[in-house]
Amino acid sequence: MNNKNAKPLYEQIYEDIRSDILSGRMKKDERLPSKRALSERLSVSVITVENAYSQLIAEGYVRAAERSGYFVQYSGEPVKLPENAPVPVYEPEPESFPDVGTEIFPFSVWTRLMRTVILEKGSALLKPTPSGGAMELRAAISGYLYRARGICQPPERIIIGAGSEYFYDMLIRLLGRDKRFGIEDPGFYKLSKIYRLGGANFEYISLDESGMKADELYEKNIDAAHISPAHHFPTGVVMPISRRREIMSWAETGERFIIEDDYDSEFRWSGRPVRAMFSSDGSGRVIYVNTFSKTIAPSVRISYMCLSEELYEKWRETLGFYACPVPSFEQYTLARFISDGYFERHINRAKKRFRRIREQVLGFISEFPDVRIFEENAGLHFIIEAENAEQIVSKCLEHGVRVTPLKNYYSDPSKCGQNRYVVNYSAANENEFGIIK
Amino acid sequence: MNNKNAKPLYEQIYEDIRSDILSGRMKKDERLPSKRALSERLSVSVITVENAYSQLIAEGYVRAAERSGYFVQYSGEPVKLPENAPVPVYEPEPESFPDVGTEIFPFSVWTRLMRTVILEKGSALLKPTPSGGAMELRAAISGYLYRARGICQPPERIIIGAGSEYFYDMLIRLLGRDKRFGIEDPGFYKLSKIYRLGGANFEYISLDESGMKADELYEKNIDAAHISPAHHFPTGVVMPISRRREIMSWAETGERFIIEDDYDSEFRWSGRPVRAMFSSDGSGRVIYVNTFSKTIAPSVRISYMCLSEELYEKWRETLGFYACPVPSFEQYTLARFISDGYFERHINRAKKRFRRIREQVLGFISEFPDVRIFEENAGLHFIIEAENAEQIVSKCLEHGVRVTPLKNYYSDPSKCGQNRYVVNYSAANENEFGIIK
Repeated sequence: MNNKNAKPLYEQIYEDIRSDILSGRMKKDERLPSKRALSERLSVSVITVENAYSQLIAEGYVRAAERSGYFVQYSGEPVKLPENAPVPVYEPEPESFPDVGTEIFPFSVWTRLMRTVILEKGSALLKPTPSGGAMELRAAISGYLYRARGICQPPERIIIGAGSEYFYDMLIRLLGRDKRFGIEDPGFYKLSKIYRLGGANFEYISLDESGMKADELYEKNIDAAHISPAHHFPTGVVMPISRRREIMSWAETGERFIIEDDYDSEFRWSGRPVRAMFSSDGSGRVIYVNTFSKTIAPSVRISYMCLSEELYEKWRETLGFYACPVPSFEQYTLARFISDGYFERHINRAKKRFRRIREQVLGFISEFPDVRIFEENAGLHFIIEAENAEQIVSKCLEHGVRVTPLKNYYSDPSKCGQNRYVVNYSAANENEFGIIK
Repeated sequence: MNNKNAKPLYEQIYEDIRSDILSGRMKKDERLPSKRALSERLSVSVITVENAYSQLIAEGYVRAAERSGYFVQYSGEPVKLPENAPVPVYEPEPESFPDVGTEIFPFSVWTRLMRTVILEKGSALLKPTPSGGAMELRAAISGYLYRARGICQPPERIIIGAGSEYFYDMLIRLLGRDKRFGIEDPGFYKLSKIYRLGGANFEYISLDESGMKADELYEKNIDAAHISPAHHFPTGVVMPISRRREIMSWAETGERFIIEDDYDSEFRWSGRPVRAMFSSDGSGRVIYVNTFSKTIAPSVRISYMCLSEELYEKWRETLGFYACPVPSFEQYTLARFISDGYFERHINRAKKRFRRIREQVLGFISEFPDVRIFEENAGLHFIIEAENAEQIVSKCLEHGVRVTPLKNYYSDPSKCGQNRYVVNYSAANENEFGIIK
């Protein structure tokens, strides 16, 4: 026995006997030394041996037979125990993540609100929030949606989740895995992965210049259309009211739903943000999904979903048992950030910043010869068509503007127009443009 | 036009025309007044009208024909717009959640670490962590697992998630929806719901006094057995080594897996915590899942999963694109809490506290006549058998100890022994026992 060993003595005894049993050195029904005998042999107290034996009994290696002693109980095949390799030394990761506009985020305000929340809430922060999220946050979002998006939604029917991905999975469970989902093609590449991994039936639906084609929704027997009418990724299409109405009519015929993914809707370069379909939905067919990861910071994994009365009841009955995945602390801090007006101020600053960046990017790209720009005054990306894009790409990269072939976002890349690219300036660094703020 | 209206003038114009078009009062191809004419009629500037028209064009209600004016574009059926009901007044929820041992949580330490993290990390908090979680937290957990559970796991292969439920869903995606999952019957009631909603094939597997029956895993062609060998809920069974080996042998035959749910393993009332199956797994068949929601606070939605090298590679390739659902701030705070030793100190305090509560509860229950107690020196719950349980239930409730019929946890309640109850003291209030600490 090694007294200097970090482990207590009884554990060392336990480990030795356990390893003898597992390796087959001690066989089933073999008698163990009595506690007294072993304690004398090892020069430890009887209590120490007793603790080791109790552990072996608790784990089923050994049995105690009343008044006759201790016997090996385990009779399995000998086991080769894995070597306890040393725990690898931790190397911090290089900080290589894109900085999505976080340079203008009012971080000192955020941390001040964090401190306020710690003081005000105290140990109430340790209590779980309701399944749908903290009511304070849901009320703050309700107010924001009313002011900014013309959406009148009672806080109860706003559900808080951990990022948009969380809701994509949840919607499969809410609407049912037997439903056929229609997703935009081209579209956000993660979406098809998530529906596939979620075990959902889904079909790619083509787009024309007005967005998702309504007739394909009928042809392909879709039950739920997942669309981003405010600003489609990657084409940049803003869905006109005629197409919105067509898709609404489709949904109103039968038990069909529209998942309105409102990502990016805050960034509109002329006029107001385009109205959300959810706000004109009288028939309870639209589910509205949005996230704060794009507008505040990618590390803030808070998203929300607005449901009709009927779907909310269904959610409560079938999914309401899931715990809210967002820590209460983050929820309260964000609630304060919104209800004290900081969120809308931040959005306004971000809009001004991206408006300047957008002008710069549009400016230098249009100076290249033979380039066509498709842009609809919305969002943080647009499409270009250029035969020789290498120079444009390298100029863009200099400014942190990402350029990706548009065909990457098609289920069938051959359907994509030639020489088209998506220009995304959401991670561009304004300072590098030499703009004086 | 109403100058006092909170909305800008151009929005009021936009809204009026939009509603005229949607309601059918203005028909397709009808000409709108010229900008100048309307501005004069309404006594607003031409720019204001222009802004309203631009918005209508952007949303597809109106089209501009060069040099001939503006025309209604929309031709759909008239729409009844929903009334904008006032946003309901927010009523804070009553604070009615159980207080799961949070009274002894070192909240002041936690908030101090929060402040330290804010200071040290600064705006790096806005950056997303890697998909598997912040390396600092994964390294801290790796060290903890080594010290406390005899598990030697490199930080890279520890994945961070938002609560255990998050991983149950993820494991369906990781192992495949075509796999057959075996879950404990009786068992944690949420589990069958989650597997069902997740679209997984699952079977209930019966237990005997050693836990899940290995032969049923063969009979029912199970591919993945979901078990809690350290302390089963609700029966309290600690799986002996013989059954562990039987289930390991089952897993090693063919492409089969064990999901080891190690919830509750910290609370062991004699000897050391029972060793995790994951730590003796030489064949990469065991997936280890645990959570901090039970040991720190239910509002801390952080759980983790340990994977074999092979499964980790599969996770990275197929699921590594999901963003980590836990805010970076929470991750860094917990990393500090663990690596500075506070977590283990907290567990030790909690153990002392629950040991005292357990003695009290066992004490007063055993004083009732004709009650049998089934308890295996582990966890925060045990089973009793009593013909007339009303008095026991009310005595328990006085102390915040919950009593539930055991049959509630069976897929077929008739299989449950008569008059059995689960006594759960995880939310008991020590002060009410009048114990002097």
